[in-house]
Amino acid sequence: MQASKRIENLLGGGSDGWDVFNKARAMIASGIPVTELTIGEHDIRTAAPILQEMHRSAIDGHTGYASIPGVAALRDAVAARVSTMTGVPTARENVMITPGGQSALFAAHIAACDPGDRALYLDPYYATYPGTLRGASAEPVRVETRAEDAFQPRAEDIAAHAEGAASLLINTPNNPTGVVYSKRTLEGIAQVCRDHDLWLISDEVYDSQVWEGEHLSPRALPGMAERTLVVGSMSKSHAMTGSRCGWVIGPADVIGHLINLGTHTTYGVPGFIQDAAVFALGQGPGFEAEIAEPFRRRRALAQKVLAAQNAVALVPSQGAMYLMLDVRSTGMSGEDFALALLEKHHIAVMPGESFGQAAAGHLRVAMTIEDRAFEGALRTLCAFAESLI
Amino acid sequence: MQASKRIENLLGGGSDGWDVFNKARAMIASGIPVTELTIGEHDIRTAAPILQEMHRSAIDGHTGYASIPGVAALRDAVAARVSTMTGVPTARENVMITPGGQSALFAAHIAACDPGDRALYLDPYYATYPGTLRGASAEPVRVETRAEDAFQPRAEDIAAHAEGAASLLINTPNNPTGVVYSKRTLEGIAQVCRDHDLWLISDEVYDSQVWEGEHLSPRALPGMAERTLVVGSMSKSHAMTGSRCGWVIGPADVIGHLINLGTHTTYGVPGFIQDAAVFALGQGPGFEAEIAEPFRRRRALAQKVLAAQNAVALVPSQGAMYLMLDVRSTGMSGEDFALALLEKHHIAVMPGESFGQAAAGHLRVAMTIEDRAFEGALRTLCAFAESLI
Repeated sequence: MQASKRIENLLGGGSDGWDVFNKARAMIASGIPVTELTIGEHDIRTAAPILQEMHRSAIDGHTGYASIPGVAALRDAVAARVSTMTGVPTARENVMITPGGQSALFAAHIAACDPGDRALYLDPYYATYPGTLRGASAEPVRVETRAEDAFQPRAEDIAAHAEGAASLLINTPNNPTGVVYSKRTLEGIAQVCRDHDLWLISDEVYDSQVWEGEHLSPRALPGMAERTLVVGSMSKSHAMTGSRCGWVIGPADVIGHLINLGTHTTYGVPGFIQDAAVFALGQGPGFEAEIAEPFRRRRALAQKVLAAQNAVALVPSQGAMYLMLDVRSTGMSGEDFALALLEKHHIAVMPGESFGQAAAGHLRVAMTIEDRAFEGALRTLCAFAESLI
Repeated sequence: MQASKRIENLLGGGSDGWDVFNKARAMIASGIPVTELTIGEHDIRTAAPILQEMHRSAIDGHTGYASIPGVAALRDAVAARVSTMTGVPTARENVMITPGGQSALFAAHIAACDPGDRALYLDPYYATYPGTLRGASAEPVRVETRAEDAFQPRAEDIAAHAEGAASLLINTPNNPTGVVYSKRTLEGIAQVCRDHDLWLISDEVYDSQVWEGEHLSPRALPGMAERTLVVGSMSKSHAMTGSRCGWVIGPADVIGHLINLGTHTTYGVPGFIQDAAVFALGQGPGFEAEIAEPFRRRRALAQKVLAAQNAVALVPSQGAMYLMLDVRSTGMSGEDFALALLEKHHIAVMPGESFGQAAAGHLRVAMTIEDRAFEGALRTLCAFAESLI
């Protein structure tokens, strides 16, 4: 029997962009070793003390239904982190705990858009964005950023699509580009949101991974706290990807509505996971810096490798656990390059085309394997590109 | 700034039906002891061996992103349980693991309905149903069942609302009534679904709690496997309410779409929780019977208490962890009775009106406190009703 049109059209009729990834996994399954630089997942696991705290909480009996908005201690801890990092006074009432950042992205769009509303997002984009907007029954409207601007979005490009739109989704530090939006970029974005009465949905899950400059939350800009929903998560900052614990930050009245939505969609986050998150946040910024350190180190390695050749250009790498490499000098698409690299050298990277059209001829490289193997793979990638010119 | 209409209207403008519950919690907070018979949550916690297995899995490193459809072992274990309990051959491809049954209910409606589609549900209903349909941007259409039929729905009442509808949501064993739908009832429902090309969304989270007769899954009826989405969960059967682990069972193509939806809404269920669920399901039907036993015992106690008086009538109690009591002989609404009982005797039960209009003048009593206290509270409730006649 026929499913709903919206769920049948969730992927927009296109490929999901994971062909290279799937091919790599198939090679691995058939016994061929592949160096995977595809997924945004740490090469460490969640720290044992966090898991011990989770177990203590569970054994102590926090295994029943947990408070839907999140337990008070976690909402307070998240509010304190946001207040400190962004300078915007943030209280428990501004925080809704969700089962992961993806769930927060989806909920934020339900809160911002009615069915059929235009929802803007920027290309290149994290792979789930357009499907998330379709899943929320909004109409995804893609706004291209430009390689020549190092993918810093232009306010006028956004404004050109903003008439009648309900929301704009941004992500800084950015996946897939590794770019951190400048103050000027964010002021331009804020101006467009105010001018066109848009909700700004600001995905800041990489806020602890900044290598250059500083992370600015657009919620801190004038007039923006009332129209910004910030998406955050324990996944990247605390290496807790599998724990599915994230949040939305926003005006108290909208958080109230999101709590109602949570009651009717997810019914809360396991109490023992929330207690583990409280413990993890209690380790402070030093712990977050420790989790980010391998990526900072590998990014420095990559800068060194890339400086020694001319075939591959590095998009200014300012944050997040990815590098965006420009291989247009080879004349190949990112997809063809990635497939050839996989076949010839058994190295898997994501084609820029997996993230939209603006990053065509680019590659996203996840810095998620140990340093020597990472450096070796990058050297091979660069030599392969040079051999093609 | 204004949120979306759909999220502002999620509760349909009415009360959420939890006034008595909230009042009881406020009394408790102010130091007044209250006997709570409100929430569908076991008075035991999740069993320690299940939590030990969860911890073993986490410490062993299952803390990264888990497979979005669910790990193979859990999908297989759920498929095997469903095959055994219902007789319908069910494979891994028919199972999507979700973060809890509520999430499964929401996802199933996204799969069955497009925005604006009419989605039928039966009154009395579990409190989240209408909001879940609104959250999925469907138009909730309420179909009343009748106290005179012991709340077994009539096919003709459903058919009268079915023209142009996309789905019908049912729940057996039923919350709040404790009724188990008969074969005749389910055959009538299946006929309506086939006649009107409806998706049947069958919430079977209480399938392990049957005191009389047997649980039939409508998916087993002729022509229904292709149009039925079954919602299940570890919550009630394994006392794992807080672990948020549930599933949708359905045709493989729809499960494929639901996996896409999961990628864009929840991004999977923690791997260590899934491993714990595999372990819990591995304990077999004997363990499920053990978890259900206290409710079976208390239901027998309740039958004894109620047989000894004439003021309160028991709706045939066939399954689930609730009793539905008819207090219409007192001339009071369920709401007024529940408030008076709370004020005078510090016993909290849910008014029937919390679950729609069909159960007006009734009370839902959760059998979720230890036997003696439960029996005592029921005796007090009956005596209170007698004093009012």
